[in-house]
Amino acid sequence: MGEFGLIRHLTEDIKTQQASTHKGVGDDCAVISANNSETLVTTDLLLEGIHFDLTYVPLKHLGYKAASVNISDIYAMNGTPTQMVVSLGISKRFSVEDMEQLYDGIKLACRNHGVDIVGGDTTSSLTGLTISITCIGMADKEDIVYRSGAKDTDLVCVSGDLGAAYMGLQLLEREKAVFNQQGNKDKEVQAQPDFQGKEYLLERQLKPEARGDIIKKLKEAGVKPTAMIDVSDGLSSELLHICHESHCGCSVYEERIPIDYQTGIQAEQFGISAVTCALNGGEDYELLFTVSLKDYEKISQIEGVHIIGRIQKEELGALLVTRDGAEYPLQAQGWQHL
Amino acid sequence: MGEFGLIRHLTEDIKTQQASTHKGVGDDCAVISANNSETLVTTDLLLEGIHFDLTYVPLKHLGYKAASVNISDIYAMNGTPTQMVVSLGISKRFSVEDMEQLYDGIKLACRNHGVDIVGGDTTSSLTGLTISITCIGMADKEDIVYRSGAKDTDLVCVSGDLGAAYMGLQLLEREKAVFNQQGNKDKEVQAQPDFQGKEYLLERQLKPEARGDIIKKLKEAGVKPTAMIDVSDGLSSELLHICHESHCGCSVYEERIPIDYQTGIQAEQFGISAVTCALNGGEDYELLFTVSLKDYEKISQIEGVHIIGRIQKEELGALLVTRDGAEYPLQAQGWQHL
Repeated sequence: MGEFGLIRHLTEDIKTQQASTHKGVGDDCAVISANNSETLVTTDLLLEGIHFDLTYVPLKHLGYKAASVNISDIYAMNGTPTQMVVSLGISKRFSVEDMEQLYDGIKLACRNHGVDIVGGDTTSSLTGLTISITCIGMADKEDIVYRSGAKDTDLVCVSGDLGAAYMGLQLLEREKAVFNQQGNKDKEVQAQPDFQGKEYLLERQLKPEARGDIIKKLKEAGVKPTAMIDVSDGLSSELLHICHESHCGCSVYEERIPIDYQTGIQAEQFGISAVTCALNGGEDYELLFTVSLKDYEKISQIEGVHIIGRIQKEELGALLVTRDGAEYPLQAQGWQHL
Repeated sequence: MGEFGLIRHLTEDIKTQQASTHKGVGDDCAVISANNSETLVTTDLLLEGIHFDLTYVPLKHLGYKAASVNISDIYAMNGTPTQMVVSLGISKRFSVEDMEQLYDGIKLACRNHGVDIVGGDTTSSLTGLTISITCIGMADKEDIVYRSGAKDTDLVCVSGDLGAAYMGLQLLEREKAVFNQQGNKDKEVQAQPDFQGKEYLLERQLKPEARGDIIKKLKEAGVKPTAMIDVSDGLSSELLHICHESHCGCSVYEERIPIDYQTGIQAEQFGISAVTCALNGGEDYELLFTVSLKDYEKISQIEGVHIIGRIQKEELGALLVTRDGAEYPLQAQGWQHL
């Protein structure tokens, strides 16, 4: 049973009791009604050794990222992030200065997106650093975009480019391995890692930006997506979430998937496929969304948005169409635990 | 720097930006405005080895308690708990059945208090079990009770009784120590722990109840507390929180502090003071609140509520008055980390 299966299993019998609960488990955020405006709630748990490795992740970047991934979930509902609560589990090896750095990163991301930190919990930890963040957002009822609204013939769009965060991670992991090997030799001759020309990949991994700018551009262009999700697990998984929730299929064209040239070069050096990184790498925190065909003109003119495929009937499947025209079913990712 | 100092240090420069943020860090919950009704948000992080020990805590009880302590924070604002998001970090030693039990406990507490589980995050963990819960609640603006409203001459009240949860913990810890010692001897002769007559202490530790019933009774009696907090760290710490936030002092009378007879007996057996358990033990999840002197008649008639002292001017200090009339300044608890 994988991650998605376990969540489904644990939550499938939950019945909502509150009239104010408009949407519970199963989208980027919960939706709670508060009269005219709706309240959005999302949460993420980040554990040392699973989600981050402090041998190469600076604490300030970690804080920034932890906040960003939650803010990104609010945008993925077409909402405005407004408040955040932050819980930290801290082991003895961390100093007050360490926690300041972590918090500085959280505060910076919040400031950039107008989010208020309104509470949290701070506790000691026997093991690694634990970060749990819950972000609250607001949206007018008619503006909210769920994963479930994609319709046959809709266009599949994605912001920015994909796969770079995964390449950044591979680079950092490689340098860590080199460093660990050198640790047994003379410390004097250890070379500093040379990341020149690879800054973009590292930044995508270490300091992802939640795409509030895209939400703004869509609003300005008068386009409301029919379905939306942010890319945390990889394009494949997110497409499958939309298809599952919207009871539809899709065809996504390999040649249309936006990949930065640095990602391409680095993938080639590592001998792996850049498209595989985009499909399964994850942590891009770009927005994946579908729009009605009638919005084609408008969406084409928005800088930083790429049309990568189309929604089709469920029975046609969720497919990747390669450059040579072959079709492959998309595969889900997510961690495998049990 | 202790827990409260660290939290203050990390959050003191946070300025709120959102008009909807009515109250941020520093009370049981954040308060977010949603037109007529206010949204309350509280969060707790529970880590294995710090907050719970699975050698004697059944997973279902753990889930129940994890949910209850969050629900309790909403009641401590005089609000109604409505939604919850649940994040779990799970290491490989847990089975799907284990997680079901944990979730069953969470669901039971939510059902008892009408709370909807509306989301969460589930991830693998390299170490122990991690539980992070954020609870959302609602309250009319004029009904919310902060820690900051206590006034000179107000009565200090507490629900239920105190110290039993701490006694329960000591019992469980003792049995664990005995069990570990016996582990080296013949397994055949291991005695089952005899908890007869001590069920109440164990229940208070393992399965605390959030006091929504007291909130209801106060409403029915037409009493709105001037300040309120729930007892998680111990009576002393909570009194000091109220005094600090309300810029006042207090006198609390030792003889008035409600202590169950089982707590008293067990404390005597352990050779410790039951009053110390009540003051510093924590995890009682009772409601500590202050009411105006004019509500004396009404509050006296509410079953399960005890008047234990009075609020006084700040310069008089926050004091415990012992049975022989001596006065001692109350001491804060909270974990000491840095």
